[in-house]
Amino acid sequence: MLDRLIAPDIKAAIDSGDLSQILDFFRAAHAADAAEILAGLAVDDDLAILKLLEPELVADIFSELPDTLQTELAGLLTPAELTGLASDLSPDDRVDLLKTMPEERMAEVMQGLDKPERDEVKALVLWPEGTAGSLMTTEFIALPASLTVTQAMARIRKEAVDKESVYNSYVVDAAGRPLGVVNLRDLILAEPEATLRQIMDDQLPTVAASADDEESTWKLARYDLVDLAVVDEAGVLVGLVTHDDAMDNMEREHTEDMERFMGITGTADDTSYLRTPVWTHFRHRVGWLVVLTVLGLVSGLILEGFEDLLTGLMVLAFYMPMLVATGGNTGSQAATMVVRSLALKELAPRDALRVLWKELRIALLLCLVLGALAFGRVWLFTGAGDLPAGITVVSVGLTITLALVVQVISAGLIGALLPLTVARFGLDPALVASPALATVVDITGLLIYFSIARLVLGL
Amino acid sequence: MLDRLIAPDIKAAIDSGDLSQILDFFRAAHAADAAEILAGLAVDDDLAILKLLEPELVADIFSELPDTLQTELAGLLTPAELTGLASDLSPDDRVDLLKTMPEERMAEVMQGLDKPERDEVKALVLWPEGTAGSLMTTEFIALPASLTVTQAMARIRKEAVDKESVYNSYVVDAAGRPLGVVNLRDLILAEPEATLRQIMDDQLPTVAASADDEESTWKLARYDLVDLAVVDEAGVLVGLVTHDDAMDNMEREHTEDMERFMGITGTADDTSYLRTPVWTHFRHRVGWLVVLTVLGLVSGLILEGFEDLLTGLMVLAFYMPMLVATGGNTGSQAATMVVRSLALKELAPRDALRVLWKELRIALLLCLVLGALAFGRVWLFTGAGDLPAGITVVSVGLTITLALVVQVISAGLIGALLPLTVARFGLDPALVASPALATVVDITGLLIYFSIARLVLGL
Repeated sequence: MLDRLIAPDIKAAIDSGDLSQILDFFRAAHAADAAEILAGLAVDDDLAILKLLEPELVADIFSELPDTLQTELAGLLTPAELTGLASDLSPDDRVDLLKTMPEERMAEVMQGLDKPERDEVKALVLWPEGTAGSLMTTEFIALPASLTVTQAMARIRKEAVDKESVYNSYVVDAAGRPLGVVNLRDLILAEPEATLRQIMDDQLPTVAASADDEESTWKLARYDLVDLAVVDEAGVLVGLVTHDDAMDNMEREHTEDMERFMGITGTADDTSYLRTPVWTHFRHRVGWLVVLTVLGLVSGLILEGFEDLLTGLMVLAFYMPMLVATGGNTGSQAATMVVRSLALKELAPRDALRVLWKELRIALLLCLVLGALAFGRVWLFTGAGDLPAGITVVSVGLTITLALVVQVISAGLIGALLPLTVARFGLDPALVASPALATVVDITGLLIYFSIARLVLGL
Repeated sequence: MLDRLIAPDIKAAIDSGDLSQILDFFRAAHAADAAEILAGLAVDDDLAILKLLEPELVADIFSELPDTLQTELAGLLTPAELTGLASDLSPDDRVDLLKTMPEERMAEVMQGLDKPERDEVKALVLWPEGTAGSLMTTEFIALPASLTVTQAMARIRKEAVDKESVYNSYVVDAAGRPLGVVNLRDLILAEPEATLRQIMDDQLPTVAASADDEESTWKLARYDLVDLAVVDEAGVLVGLVTHDDAMDNMEREHTEDMERFMGITGTADDTSYLRTPVWTHFRHRVGWLVVLTVLGLVSGLILEGFEDLLTGLMVLAFYMPMLVATGGNTGSQAATMVVRSLALKELAPRDALRVLWKELRIALLLCLVLGALAFGRVWLFTGAGDLPAGITVVSVGLTITLALVVQVISAGLIGALLPLTVARFGLDPALVASPALATVVDITGLLIYFSIARLVLGL
């Protein structure tokens, strides 16, 4: 929204060719706000503005830009400029930038970096996207347990200048394995002669670098941490996931969960809805829609199989949309609850029986209400004259009510069981998208409906 | 999951009547883990264990318990115990606890609190649930800008002992309005004689206490903050929203969004799926289901209106489920994208035209694929012999394809427009639940389908 308020002034400055007027704005603004403005301008103008700003400021703003714009801008920089930028970025942002480049370019930039910067990159690129390692920064302060508070403060004063997160210092053993943590408050309040071992908090949650990034976000939130220690296979402290990266990751995961749940594929990058090209939106949506439409055609085949029933008793067709939709809705509700509870680690796949028992009871209560509704509708609004000989209003009402009851119960159970099964195999339960579930329930619903009609009405 | 690993030992200790064996566990465990264990035990056992632990530890664990269990336990404590507990809790947790009590009890506990504690409560209860004020803590360090670094450190040493968040100290003017912020790192690295005014960061995002709590979460994430300054109407600093409370709030908001989107009402408290009673689940789900089932019956009325068409050309019924489901799916996809983009503030209601233009183009691309699919299915699998005289396979194929195209386009536009409209009136766009949308699109879809059939086939 910001860009619409300030962009006109910026455009005026660009038109007049005098960018210096707006540099003060970028120097005073928060990097996130400056990035939002730049994202609303043409790439050429972005480049012109960034070239006038101080390198550290450029790095701050750059790391807040949408991924696609970062890639585009990086492509327009000279190798020397790119190396300068890469070296000003924090290690995790540096790796993210390098990952977007063609290999040749990456090698060129790596060549230009200092040895320690190169080493940081090498330590981070090991971890694939989606792991805690890919989310971490390698800038942290590690101190031996034998230091006194005074010694520790001296070390922190020396090291803190260019570290991303300095609220916490980690106490490690000789091999670099974390023993505990001290925060700056503890240090300031402690006796100067106390050792870190005496004052550290040894309840230190850690996460494996190879663990899922959601694991790290979950631990940060559960234990109310500012940063979370990341360890390698040997238990050595290799980095930190900071609270701000965890929060961004949480938002990204939420977006992906919701999109997957609606059958939208692709990873949620940070390009906004309006800036994502129509073609990309199309590609992310078309896959599941085609699958579901084909499955929808299966419903048609089922109807064809029951053509005689339908022609004999057209009133059955009138209740079909309600029956199918109610199944889809109850199934989606159950699936939503289970998917979300799995994400919050309130449930595990082995809880399947307890979940099914709970959903069964919920479905039975829902059946009481919805069944009465359906029966009442048939009873009140169906004229006996519309029905063929031998079929009574009550028997039609019973058919539809019974079908609805079986449909609601089976949809609730399927809705709960599908995500649990998918999770059992280590996949994302949100993959059992709500539309996919609704389509499955469409098909089972039609089979239930017409089978019950055949049985009850004897057609 | 933790409770299943450790609970047996605890149960054994309870059975043997010797709780002292397990106290060490609760003393060593993180409060969040201890709370998870307690939530898995009987309330009486919880009470017995908590009474054996140190008061500060009890407060830490208590604040991590699910809301419903907190209320239950509070009901079992004597007024004196309750006052002790309330006074050990941090101000925001204290207020949350007080809010759950009957008024009489609350007055009794308030009576027992110290004057400053009572004042904190009074300052916090002003802000209703859902505001930034209700999320904040009143424990923060405020310093005048004229202090030197040495003076500031002395003040912080004195005040920090019992403050919830001490990473940042806020620099305020004489009226208490925030001027900037200094974190402990800045203080440690600064010249001892520098004043706070010289070293503070004056780019200080703030949030109004009366603002929506999502606003505070969003600012914390956007500006990568550890805590966010909350100001009252006069611009005076009254509290902080801390990163951990913001993260919890983010998770809660996301659960609510997903549930609302699936037509599940009620607020997401922190009681887990399995511990929520069946009756509560039922109440949260039944409302929308009844509304949707009634709307589903409207679909039946539409079908009744087109009974002659259906009896004349039964093949139309076979494509009905596919047509209706595809509309629901495309509509839900569009709605999901728009709801999520609104939540991330990438979109505002006034962007409606740009969104519609984008969705129109996406829908047209989708129509190319899905329309070809539908036409191919009719063309390949419909025998001319099944059709009445005067109706050709091609004309049926055209009818169904045209209906699908109109359905996909209208569903996409309705899916995008509904949440934007709801947001325009200041309501939560997730209220236009996916099932609600699907039901609306069911009804428009049937109208579109049979109107087009009547037109094209001249029946």
